[in-house]
Amino acid sequence: MQQAITDHVDSHLDETIEGLKRLTRQPSISAQRLGVLECGEMVVEMLRDAGFDAGLVPTADPGYPGIIAELKGKSDRSLLFYNHYDVQPPDPLDEWETPPFEPTERDGYLYGRGISDDKGPIAARLAAIKAVRDTMGELPITIRWCLEGAEEIGSPGFHEFVEQNAERIKSDVCIWEGGGVNWDGRPMVMLGVKGLLYVELECRSAKTDSHSSYAPVVPNPAWRLIWALNTLKDESERIAIPGFYDRIRPALENETKAIAALPDTSREFLHDLGVEMAVGEASGYEFRRRLIMEPTANIAGFGAGYTGQGAKTILPAVARAKLDFRLVPNQDPQEILQNLREHLDRNGFSDVTISSLTSEHPARTSIEDPFVRQVADSARRVYESEPYIVPSMTGTGPQHPVQHILGVPVASCGIDYPGNRIHAPNENIRLDYFRLGVLHTAELITELGA
Amino acid sequence: MQQAITDHVDSHLDETIEGLKRLTRQPSISAQRLGVLECGEMVVEMLRDAGFDAGLVPTADPGYPGIIAELKGKSDRSLLFYNHYDVQPPDPLDEWETPPFEPTERDGYLYGRGISDDKGPIAARLAAIKAVRDTMGELPITIRWCLEGAEEIGSPGFHEFVEQNAERIKSDVCIWEGGGVNWDGRPMVMLGVKGLLYVELECRSAKTDSHSSYAPVVPNPAWRLIWALNTLKDESERIAIPGFYDRIRPALENETKAIAALPDTSREFLHDLGVEMAVGEASGYEFRRRLIMEPTANIAGFGAGYTGQGAKTILPAVARAKLDFRLVPNQDPQEILQNLREHLDRNGFSDVTISSLTSEHPARTSIEDPFVRQVADSARRVYESEPYIVPSMTGTGPQHPVQHILGVPVASCGIDYPGNRIHAPNENIRLDYFRLGVLHTAELITELGA
Repeated sequence: MQQAITDHVDSHLDETIEGLKRLTRQPSISAQRLGVLECGEMVVEMLRDAGFDAGLVPTADPGYPGIIAELKGKSDRSLLFYNHYDVQPPDPLDEWETPPFEPTERDGYLYGRGISDDKGPIAARLAAIKAVRDTMGELPITIRWCLEGAEEIGSPGFHEFVEQNAERIKSDVCIWEGGGVNWDGRPMVMLGVKGLLYVELECRSAKTDSHSSYAPVVPNPAWRLIWALNTLKDESERIAIPGFYDRIRPALENETKAIAALPDTSREFLHDLGVEMAVGEASGYEFRRRLIMEPTANIAGFGAGYTGQGAKTILPAVARAKLDFRLVPNQDPQEILQNLREHLDRNGFSDVTISSLTSEHPARTSIEDPFVRQVADSARRVYESEPYIVPSMTGTGPQHPVQHILGVPVASCGIDYPGNRIHAPNENIRLDYFRLGVLHTAELITELGA
Repeated sequence: MQQAITDHVDSHLDETIEGLKRLTRQPSISAQRLGVLECGEMVVEMLRDAGFDAGLVPTADPGYPGIIAELKGKSDRSLLFYNHYDVQPPDPLDEWETPPFEPTERDGYLYGRGISDDKGPIAARLAAIKAVRDTMGELPITIRWCLEGAEEIGSPGFHEFVEQNAERIKSDVCIWEGGGVNWDGRPMVMLGVKGLLYVELECRSAKTDSHSSYAPVVPNPAWRLIWALNTLKDESERIAIPGFYDRIRPALENETKAIAALPDTSREFLHDLGVEMAVGEASGYEFRRRLIMEPTANIAGFGAGYTGQGAKTILPAVARAKLDFRLVPNQDPQEILQNLREHLDRNGFSDVTISSLTSEHPARTSIEDPFVRQVADSARRVYESEPYIVPSMTGTGPQHPVQHILGVPVASCGIDYPGNRIHAPNENIRLDYFRLGVLHTAELITELGA
C-alpha cells in the first residue's frame, strides 16, 4: 500500500469516526419504521460529500428506499459495494451499558446499535474511497454503491430493485457487507450467505384470555403451539419437516478444505457468549462445519399469556412463535414454507396459522473465482497474515439477486471482529480493526485498478 | 322468608349498591400493592357501621392485612364468612367498555373490577346482615367474618393467619366467597376448591441474546423449554409427571351423582368464550366432570426472544414459562413440585430451573354434611328452584386451612352468574342475581338461628 494512503486514513480517522457516530445517532429501525428515511437521506448526503452521484431510489415500499450511487474512476473496471443503512431494534434496552443511539467510545471500542451492522462498514468504505481519491487525484476504477433500508426485515422488494436497476448497478465485482477478522486477528474472506425463511406461527383459542380454572375444557393455544413446534425439531436437533434436507447440495471438496483450514475458535466463541457447551457438543472442524454449512430452525421469539412479575392465573387466548430457518444451497424458502404447512396439517395442527414475514435464497461465490484471490491478496498485504477463505457467512443477506441477476462474484472485506455483539445489546467495533478494514478496502480498490 | 326481611333488602337496595360502588372505586390490586391498605380500612369502616367489632389484623406482610370481625347474636351458634378485598389487575385496559374503577350500571348489570370478585359478595352479605338485624332486633346467631387482602396473589401468609387467630374466627359453619346461579338461574351450592401449584420455569443459554446465525452451535433455551414442556403433557392432555395422578381420591358416588344432576351448559360456556370445541371434544357430563374433578397443567405464560412487530433474527438468551397446576383431593402441591423437578432431571432438563410462586392445597366439604342441606334448603326457598350441589369450584382459594385447622364445613352462597367475566375485562354482576344473593344470605342466617 502506498504510505500516502495509510497516512490519509490515519490523519482522517477522527473525522471518519465522527461521521460514523453521526450516522449511528440517527435511529433507523426498519422493523419499527423508525428513522429509516431520515437515515437514508443522511447516507445520500455523505455519499455526495465524498463525490458520488447519489440519490434515493424508490422500492416497492416508499418507507424503505434504496440508494444508488456512482463515482467514476480512471478506468471502466467497476466495483460494487452493497450495504444497508437500517438496524435491528435495540431491545432489550436494560442490557445496554450505554444508550444504543448514543455511540460511545470505551477502551478502543465503539458501542452503539448499528455500529458494526452496517454503519461502520459504510463509514469505513467512505474513508477508504476518500483516501484513495485524495491521494491519487482520481479513483483508479469506477465505484458503484447500492444500499437498502430494509435488510434487517429481510430485504422486501430488493430482488425487484436489483432487477429494475440492473443497468445502473451492474459491475465487474461486488464487495458485500460484513467481513473482517477472526478471533486471532487474521482476515476472513467470506463468499456467500445463507438463505432465510422467517415465519410467525399463531394459534388461537378463546376470544379473550380467560380464568385458568377453565383449563380442563378450554384448549390452551400455548400448549398447542408447543406441541406443534415439538414436531418440527426434537432434542436430536434434526429438523423433521419432510423434504427439508432433500435439495441440499453436498459440500464441495474446496469448501471442506477451506473449513478445515480455519482455526478452532469454538472456545473463544462460546466463552464470549457465556455458553457452556455447543449444540451436539460440537468442537473443532465439526463446530465450524455446522456454523457455515448447516441449515437451522431457530425460535426467535415465543409469546403467550402473562409474562410479567409474579403469578397470574390466566389461560391465554393466543400464542405466537417467530421462527427463522437459515438455508444452505440449494434450499428454496418457498418450498420449505409449503413443506412446513403440509407438515403441520399432517400432524393435526391445521389450526396453527403461518405468516411468512421474509425470505431469501442462499448464495455463494465459487472459491475458484479470480476475484477471491484479489481480495485475499490485498488482505494479506494489509493484515500481514494469511487470510482465511470462508465458503459462506453464517448470516443472511440479499446476495442471491446480486449474484444471479447481475452475475457478479461477491466477497467480503470489512471491519468486523467476532465479539461485535451483532444484533444484540452492546453492539460494538474495535477501532484497530476498523482502521485495518479501511486500509484493506483502500488496498483492494488500488489493486483492482492496477 | 319473613316478608319484613325481603322488604328491608328491597328498600335498602339502592343504598347497598351505592356502598358497593364506593368499595369498587377504591382500587386494591394486590399484585401491584395498589390501594390494598386503603381498601382494607374502608371495609373495616363498613363492618363497624353494620355493628361489627372489626379491625385490621397483621399478616406476615404488613401491606396485606387480614380483617377479623364479629357481631354477637342471640345464640352462640356461629357462622363464619370468608371474603377478600383485593382484586386482579385490570389489564388489558383497552378491552373495558367503561373504566374498571368507575363502577357503571347498564341494563341491569353493574360493571367494574372486583364488582363480582369479591366486593359484590361483601356488600351483599352486609346488606343481608343489616336486614336480619334491623328486622329481628338482634342477629339470631353470632357472625364472624374473616377477610384477606392477598387472595389474588395466592393468599401468602393466610395459613399462618388462620393458625394464629383460630380462636377468634373458629365457628360452627363457614360460607365461602363465590356461589350464585348457573346459566339457567338455578342456585349452585359449591363445596370446595381446587388446589394450586404455580411455578415459573426458566432456561438460559448464552448470557445475552445473540444473532440467530449462531443457531447451529448455540443452544436455544426456547427450544429447550418447549421440549421440556412437551415431556409434561402431549396432545393426549395427560400430564406425564410421574406420580401426578397417584394420590387423587377417586370420585365418590355422591359427587358423581351431583355432577350428573347439573345441567349441560357446555354450549353456553364455550359460546360465551368464543371457543369452538372443548378439550377432548368433551360435552355433557364429561365436560362438567372435567371442569370440577380434573387437575390441570396450564401454561399461563411463555416468553422468549422477540415478540414485537415484524422479524427479528435473534437467538434468545432466556426462555420462561409460567404454569399453574390446579389440584384435586388429595394431591399435595409440594409433592408435585418435587415430582416435577425429578421428572425434568430424569428427562435431561436439569438446566431448567423451577421457582415456586404460590401453592394451595385442595379442599372439599362432604356432600353429606348437614350444613350443605341447610344452605340448599334456604336457597330452594329464595330462588324457588332446586339448587345444584357442586362438589368443588373450578378455581382455587385458601379453604384448606379453614377446613383443616378450624375443622369447619364450608359452602358457598353468593351473587355470581357465569357471565361475570371474572378476572377479565368488563367484570360484572347482574343486579337481579345480586338481590337474590342478598336474600339467600339473609334466609340462611335466619335458618341457622331457627
